[in-house]
Amino acid sequence: MTRSIDVAVVAGDGIGPEVTAEGLKVLDAVLAGSGTTVRTTPFDLGAARWHRTGETLPDADLEAIRGHDAILLGAVGDPGVPSGVLERGLLLKLRFALDHYVNLRPSRLFPGVATPLAAPGEVDFVVVREGTEGPYVGNGGAIRVGTPHEVANEVSVNTAFGVERVVRDAFARATARPRKQLTLVHKHNVLVHAGHLWRRTVEAVGADFPDVTVDYVHVDAAMIYLVTNPSRFDVIVTDNLFGDIVTDLAAAITGGIGLAASGNVNPDRTTPSMFEPVHGSAPDIAGQGKADPTAAVLSVALMLEHLGLADEARRIETAVAADLAARGTAVRSTAEVGDALAAAV
Amino acid sequence: MTRSIDVAVVAGDGIGPEVTAEGLKVLDAVLAGSGTTVRTTPFDLGAARWHRTGETLPDADLEAIRGHDAILLGAVGDPGVPSGVLERGLLLKLRFALDHYVNLRPSRLFPGVATPLAAPGEVDFVVVREGTEGPYVGNGGAIRVGTPHEVANEVSVNTAFGVERVVRDAFARATARPRKQLTLVHKHNVLVHAGHLWRRTVEAVGADFPDVTVDYVHVDAAMIYLVTNPSRFDVIVTDNLFGDIVTDLAAAITGGIGLAASGNVNPDRTTPSMFEPVHGSAPDIAGQGKADPTAAVLSVALMLEHLGLADEARRIETAVAADLAARGTAVRSTAEVGDALAAAV
Ligand SMILES: CC(C)[C@H](C(=O)O)[C@@H](O)C(=O)O
Ligand SMILES: CC(C)[C@H](C(=O)O)[C@@H](O)C(=O)O
Repeated sequence: MTRSIDVAVVAGDGIGPEVTAEGLKVLDAVLAGSGTTVRTTPFDLGAARWHRTGETLPDADLEAIRGHDAILLGAVGDPGVPSGVLERGLLLKLRFALDHYVNLRPSRLFPGVATPLAAPGEVDFVVVREGTEGPYVGNGGAIRVGTPHEVANEVSVNTAFGVERVVRDAFARATARPRKQLTLVHKHNVLVHAGHLWRRTVEAVGADFPDVTVDYVHVDAAMIYLVTNPSRFDVIVTDNLFGDIVTDLAAAITGGIGLAASGNVNPDRTTPSMFEPVHGSAPDIAGQGKADPTAAVLSVALMLEHLGLADEARRIETAVAADLAARGTAVRSTAEVGDALAAAV
Repeated sequence: MTRSIDVAVVAGDGIGPEVTAEGLKVLDAVLAGSGTTVRTTPFDLGAARWHRTGETLPDADLEAIRGHDAILLGAVGDPGVPSGVLERGLLLKLRFALDHYVNLRPSRLFPGVATPLAAPGEVDFVVVREGTEGPYVGNGGAIRVGTPHEVANEVSVNTAFGVERVVRDAFARATARPRKQLTLVHKHNVLVHAGHLWRRTVEAVGADFPDVTVDYVHVDAAMIYLVTNPSRFDVIVTDNLFGDIVTDLAAAITGGIGLAASGNVNPDRTTPSMFEPVHGSAPDIAGQGKADPTAAVLSVALMLEHLGLADEARRIETAVAADLAARGTAVRSTAEVGDALAAAV
């Protein structure tokens, strides 16, 4: 039986195209001879497109992307684009339009990887970050802008519908893991309305997952645990903004954003999910073959897992783990790392 | 010339009274023979009071507190009080009612102190956290609570007035420090309205402080820097919620919240400012003489500094630094640490 997967590729800007090329190289290699073939369609979106046409994500592109099985994104942005334009007009627009309500960010400290922590212990947890609500909804505004009487508000919107579905997904992931632990990270002593909705939802959904142990940690306390005892976490579920903050710290303690992969997932599979490294376009090192493609390659593994190709995903992760364990101090180019991983899978 | 300072003491719950007692012991010691005398008035506020009377901060207490020169707070809360009751009814009510718009949190890695970081470098920065706006204003609400159609919102309110005054304070602090660097931490690529108000304000106020170097870091990137290169920070200015998160991480990398002091300051001096350790009431170790009073003692130093007694503040800090440097593995009681510091100042 042959199967074909259709991948929309938004390579983007800066190091985006470089790391994406390696991700696709490894994807081809892992599927070679498997009967599954890949078809990729490039989408010219990001800073370059915006500079040329002023467009971020035209309807036609969005509709074309919808027809694919998954999206691979490299990185978008450059210093010439005003802050917020591509974030809200492209990246968040994709996440919202395609209802990527699970922003999945695994954090694993692979053997051999340098970490800023003196005694990290075993680190292997996954953050399930809500992707379509919270302060990311764009529901803010300002009056009297530029005057001494300006008032600028940002509204975090949280719904029972939105919280319930992501919490349920997090429980399902926790129940499938050996330790079966779920930690809710929020700030319900201050954000009482949103916080209590999250808390009640975790309590209610937990009844359907009696084998999962649940606890709660304030977001500020989570900062402390992440550097003093990250092993305590198995699955973290949290809102969009706290998730943004927690996952960058999680990436930092597990070797940096150069290794951190993420999936913007629609578990209902009504739209293509999107897989991207956590890092940005890093214009300072773009075009020099210096970028580490590992996060892009691991994002491909998350994509394969989501598409039901779990064996292939495992093979990539195993190859990455071996490559990281064997890394010495020798500096390899982006393509050299990609070649090594492609050969290993 | 003699001077008397009037301190309202909210010792609070759990380890609060224990660490506060040591703070007051060191305060007495450092002022002995100086001509300045201290008068303390205890206020029975916190979990115990709430359990007894259902009150958090009655008007009469608030008015009585207003008459003092400063407030020393230990820690409030116990597991029997529902989340949010004391936070919003007492702690945040004091910060808001007394217009503590500068929440000052120095982070310094004293020699000899254990840190979770493998290679921290020199860490000595101060976070100026806004204290009266942001998502802490209590401007949220929920509809259809407990139903599948619940919507829970939290509003972050930011005003030109509120942002300008705290940014100005942060610049003033930066200009008085040797490195003269100010970093704005926010998330203006997503929270565009609030973020741009903060950004424009830093730009505008910066014109009055030409000797201060300014940069900007997204809150998620700040997480990474705080564990990979905390030395890069000198003064951080940020909003109430980001400040909450950043300062707990800052405390964690500089030896833990057992050492972190904070001031809730009204720089206009129209109300008493409030000084408190960053840690909580730690009910698990309360009453056992195990709590480290160092954060409470350093909070006393911040109070003295604010009251214009800079020499006395320095003497406490010097004593704490020496004590920390000399700490071996021997376990000392709360009172033993306090005695040692009192003897040293
Ligand atoms: C670029 C930005 C909008 C984005 C976010 O805040 O979600 C990024 O930080 C991330 O974590 O993917
Ligand atoms: C207890 C809580 C309301 C408080 C805050 O969030 O400000 C605490 O975490 C702090 O940092 O002082």
